Amino acid sequence: MNEAGDIEREDSLTRVEAFSDGVLAIIITIMVLELKTPIQESLSALWALWPIFIAYVLSYAYVAIYWVNHHRLLGHARVVTSGLLWSNMLLLFTLSLIPFSTAYLGEHHFGREATLLYLVTMITPALAYILLQSRVAATGAKTVASRRYHKASHRKGLAAAAIYALGIPLTFLSPWLGVACAALVAGFWMLPWSAMDRLFLDRVPPAGS
Amino acid sequence: MNEAGDIEREDSLTRVEAFSDGVLAIIITIMVLELKTPIQESLSALWALWPIFIAYVLSYAYVAIYWVNHHRLLGHARVVTSGLLWSNMLLLFTLSLIPFSTAYLGEHHFGREATLLYLVTMITPALAYILLQSRVAATGAKTVASRRYHKASHRKGLAAAAIYALGIPLTFLSPWLGVACAALVAGFWMLPWSAMDRLFLDRVPPAGS
Amino acid sequence: MNEAGDIEREDSLTRVEAFSDGVLAIIITIMVLELKTPIQESLSALWALWPIFIAYVLSYAYVAIYWVNHHRLLGHARVVTSGLLWSNMLLLFTLSLIPFSTAYLGEHHFGREATLLYLVTMITPALAYILLQSRVAATGAKTVASRRYHKASHRKGLAAAAIYALGIPLTFLSPWLGVACAALVAGFWMLPWSAMDRLFLDRVPPAGS
Amino acid sequence: MNEAGDIEREDSLTRVEAFSDGVLAIIITIMVLELKTPIQESLSALWALWPIFIAYVLSYAYVAIYWVNHHRLLGHARVVTSGLLWSNMLLLFTLSLIPFSTAYLGEHHFGREATLLYLVTMITPALAYILLQSRVAATGAKTVASRRYHKASHRKGLAAAAIYALGIPLTFLSPWLGVACAALVAGFWMLPWSAMDRLFLDRVPPAGS
Repeated sequence: MNEAGDIEREDSLTRVEAFSDGVLAIIITIMVLELKTPIQESLSALWALWPIFIAYVLSYAYVAIYWVNHHRLLGHARVVTSGLLWSNMLLLFTLSLIPFSTAYLGEHHFGREATLLYLVTMITPALAYILLQSRVAATGAKTVASRRYHKASHRKGLAAAAIYALGIPLTFLSPWLGVACAALVAGFWMLPWSAMDRLFLDRVPPAGS
Repeated sequence: MNEAGDIEREDSLTRVEAFSDGVLAIIITIMVLELKTPIQESLSALWALWPIFIAYVLSYAYVAIYWVNHHRLLGHARVVTSGLLWSNMLLLFTLSLIPFSTAYLGEHHFGREATLLYLVTMITPALAYILLQSRVAATGAKTVASRRYHKASHRKGLAAAAIYALGIPLTFLSPWLGVACAALVAGFWMLPWSAMDRLFLDRVPPAGS
Repeated sequence: MNEAGDIEREDSLTRVEAFSDGVLAIIITIMVLELKTPIQESLSALWALWPIFIAYVLSYAYVAIYWVNHHRLLGHARVVTSGLLWSNMLLLFTLSLIPFSTAYLGEHHFGREATLLYLVTMITPALAYILLQSRVAATGAKTVASRRYHKASHRKGLAAAAIYALGIPLTFLSPWLGVACAALVAGFWMLPWSAMDRLFLDRVPPAGS
Repeated sequence: MNEAGDIEREDSLTRVEAFSDGVLAIIITIMVLELKTPIQESLSALWALWPIFIAYVLSYAYVAIYWVNHHRLLGHARVVTSGLLWSNMLLLFTLSLIPFSTAYLGEHHFGREATLLYLVTMITPALAYILLQSRVAATGAKTVASRRYHKASHRKGLAAAAIYALGIPLTFLSPWLGVACAALVAGFWMLPWSAMDRLFLDRVPPAGS
């Protein structure tokens, strides 16, 4: 342990990841509990569940994206500081609200208030992620690859938050425009990393910045 | 990190496994929540739960089989690519729907629509698993043993998907035929690996292909 | 991978433990969901929850004991075989029924049928554990310490199953006698290992058998 | 395994951490299930959830603090003894009651009985943590840094328990004073470690005690 009280035991970062994995795995799985079995056995009763199912698909994609990004981000961390721990806890907190807003979105068939709430619960983890990333960038690996990664990732994070924020006024026109903004972010995060990096780093030379 | 953006940190694969384990552990355990305690305290009230219990046993066996297969499959992986991550996420998504279809199957006493839905939620993870396996085969270990493993496993996966698909028309004759198809697949996956390999690799010479 | 198809990758055992930990952690935690908050805010409304709370304490102790024993048992394993994997899955299945029988026991205030069901769901994991242990003993470490451990542990397992079985006829006299049998087993598993080993190994010489 | 039956396999401590992480991750996540979606879609229906949301935020902060402290504490452990295992199990048991008292606190809008119950469920893990820490201090690392850590941490633990205990009589004056005590402890645990150590170790010389 150094003077600042940072934990430096080798497996410490592994434990942060393990805890985050546990929370994310539970978040992703409790959302499916909203898919309550219909009392009647008929295809039409199943069909009536479509808004809840679509909301689940969308939110599953989000949490999966966060897991993938988190996994990649912590690959650049080197030391577990108080700042990293608490910004990670904040990120997990904001993500833990997604099952609530997902259930609300599905049960109210993508209505206006529900879509607004959903977009807000999408913006908060985006902001918490930017904070966590700045902590990892400050204390993590300083290689050229890491610096390129942080630069691209920071821009992507800001772009995502901006699109969600844009979705809020658009929802007043039509909730489907708000949902489309959320889906757009999901779609562009699922692009392969190499395509993403080209998109967000076209003016950054590959060796050094 | 290489040019294609693949993560190559040593513990990266471990984290994919840990996340998958978390999701599978939760899926397997939330199914038991469907076994709701009867309000009356009597053996007949407990006995009335048998369809829900049988559906739980069947689905527990499935998820356990997926865990065992997933565990063996990732033992052949060497690198975590975008393709591996997303096909793994797709597999976990399809598996996350099993608690829903299991509850539906049990509550509707193995009725026709419920059995059809159950077979569909069995086919989708089978297809996602084939996709994940092709990703591991493409980027994983290239030893003779690995190649034999992938060949046998691919054939078993196709056979399982075919038996589920066959169960769909049979369910229109009788739902129990559909359930029998699902049980047949479970039974043959639980055979010891050596017996399985003999069954699916009898024409593949042990050294090289 | 050897001829028999056993997995021998180094971290493979770790993953079996991780999955078991996940399932046990969820089992232990979903039991607390039975403690439903009373609608009225009063000490008497809280006090009325005592049977559910006592049932939770008892079952928490059981699952904790299984975790501790499982942790110690797998410390003697060396290789992950099909037999180990499936007997472990069987153990986790039998344990997964504990939340159900715990809820039933608490809701029906330790009545006769509920106590009988509880004892049955205590006997089944005891038997599955004996099976798992025999698999670890067959393929695990063969040191003197391991052999002593397996001998003591096997005897303890049989003793526990016998006490539960004894509880079944006693429950017909009074359910509290059945509950006392369950509590007796919990109490004697929580003794320190050194005391346990003295109790169950007094005629086994410390060096070799 | 030594004479006293302590487990000394290298990854054994890792498994204790993994199990604890699983239980803590589930505790933190099931609390969010109390945020039930309102049937009406309106901002006022969402607004009515504020007591449940505030209770969730407070309890999330607590469990997060316990995770961070637990993570740091086990970094000083060296061997897994029976005492460490069971005091850890006791800690997890006491923490597992937090979702219940959190739900009660939120549903009854920070009323008197609910606040008293909440403070009691805050004191019990504080005491269990002191017990666990004494077990780690007895068998763990004996470096100067570890001794300083245990001294500071022990004092902080006693201070936290004392503030909670003080909250109990204050709750009879006003429940908000009780909640303020709980929030005060959360606030002072979230200070950076270096500030905390200065606060609790000002008379302990940095090199040796």
